[in-house]
Amino acid sequence: MEMWFTEKQTENVGITCKTGKTIHMEKTEYQDLALIDTLQFGKMLVLDGTVQTTEKDEFIYHEMITHVPLFTHPNPKKVLVIGGGDGGTIREILKHPSVEKAVLVEIDNKVVEVSKKYLPTISCSLDDSRVSVLIEDGIKYVQNNKNEFDVIMVDSTDPVGPAVGLFAVDFYQAIYQALKEDGLFVAQTESPFYNNSLISNVYRDIQSVFPITQLYLCSIPTYPSGLWSFTMGSKKYHPLTVEQSNKAEIDTKYYTKEIHKSAFSLPKFVEDLLK
Amino acid sequence: MEMWFTEKQTENVGITCKTGKTIHMEKTEYQDLALIDTLQFGKMLVLDGTVQTTEKDEFIYHEMITHVPLFTHPNPKKVLVIGGGDGGTIREILKHPSVEKAVLVEIDNKVVEVSKKYLPTISCSLDDSRVSVLIEDGIKYVQNNKNEFDVIMVDSTDPVGPAVGLFAVDFYQAIYQALKEDGLFVAQTESPFYNNSLISNVYRDIQSVFPITQLYLCSIPTYPSGLWSFTMGSKKYHPLTVEQSNKAEIDTKYYTKEIHKSAFSLPKFVEDLLK
Repeated sequence: MEMWFTEKQTENVGITCKTGKTIHMEKTEYQDLALIDTLQFGKMLVLDGTVQTTEKDEFIYHEMITHVPLFTHPNPKKVLVIGGGDGGTIREILKHPSVEKAVLVEIDNKVVEVSKKYLPTISCSLDDSRVSVLIEDGIKYVQNNKNEFDVIMVDSTDPVGPAVGLFAVDFYQAIYQALKEDGLFVAQTESPFYNNSLISNVYRDIQSVFPITQLYLCSIPTYPSGLWSFTMGSKKYHPLTVEQSNKAEIDTKYYTKEIHKSAFSLPKFVEDLLK
Repeated sequence: MEMWFTEKQTENVGITCKTGKTIHMEKTEYQDLALIDTLQFGKMLVLDGTVQTTEKDEFIYHEMITHVPLFTHPNPKKVLVIGGGDGGTIREILKHPSVEKAVLVEIDNKVVEVSKKYLPTISCSLDDSRVSVLIEDGIKYVQNNKNEFDVIMVDSTDPVGPAVGLFAVDFYQAIYQALKEDGLFVAQTESPFYNNSLISNVYRDIQSVFPITQLYLCSIPTYPSGLWSFTMGSKKYHPLTVEQSNKAEIDTKYYTKEIHKSAFSLPKFVEDLLK
């Protein structure tokens, strides 16, 4: 007998993965949460039927949402993650010796609990002394903290359900306020193949708030289309004129100094989305 | 009623596409050939159950297998394509005004026939006066032509069935002989996520024959993992020191001068495969 989990990534295309057992399944206050064992990608966290992270390919997303902004800022000390309850982004943040404090604000405590229990290679840094995990609404948290953070990562689910408010110009304005005067932020902004109008709209919204706005890409096999985008808004530092030679070497499997630059080199059809 | 076509890309993961009608299906002398209508990607050519090309995303593969080598060579006049019976690579080659002659050697005439009939936006250049379409074994053709071509593209199916011999060091040696003294070639070399030992082996084999060997990447949603590799072997010209300013501007949707360079910037785990 073969079991396959299929995510419909759009109405008309999906990814299908051969599975072992379903390790955990529950309806939380915010979403349907499942933790399943897949033969290709190891353990997989699924929220509302959508792949969030897997043991085998999580390194790509977590490295790219973290190291691009943290190597753009010359001296990031205080960092905020909105969402990201699996802990992978926090794990990468703590590789930067300049970071003194990392705050994770996750709305759904069950994501943190299940990740701590079943995804130890991803959640391994959530109990570090430099980390505060807050279970609350990221939008309210950002609104209530001004001039606090060097870097903010919006490590959200797709713009349906609990994450809708994280793809809105009001939120980007609150992010701007929560950052220090030379701060910057990055948000995951979906697939250039399947979410092109979202990418255009988010880019324009961030551009209306931040003087420097740049989109970059990476390849993630379990995410729709395999090509994923992040959009950075920055008050002062430009990601392509960063001086990396004085930075610590960190251990990565995807990110390199060359990838830092080439990730901003966009296929023509993606460039065209941002015009 | 919903119909879905699923390709098992490995034993444990697949892509599934909502389909309209099956336009054509036959068992050719070499493989199972199907032409199906998909809602996400338009018409899709499938050989032995594996997606070859679709109307919506074919531009990526065809631009990247073509423009990277043709912009690396300073003056490509005579070009050979092994495989590629759908005609997309030929269409891109003819965008280069220096090209006087393009030879396509496809083993399966049914691929050419079906593409001409049902995929006119891809096969549109196969009847151009600069093009010769030969229905024969690409390996024998390469063995029988010495010192003939400026650039060769190996636009093959996966290394199972009719294409096995196109992933072998003997074939790369014959390619070397078929190229002029400053010639170069490129082969599609599968996914760095799912075919990592193949990529390592092919890279080493090409490196044993050519003084310059370089791997580059692009993102193709319908190919396994979404990340696809090409390996270039070159006798003289290096793809990263190419002077593009004297080249004609060509109309593309993926390739740009910046992508030409950034495509060679590899994620760390891919760099590690080539060591």
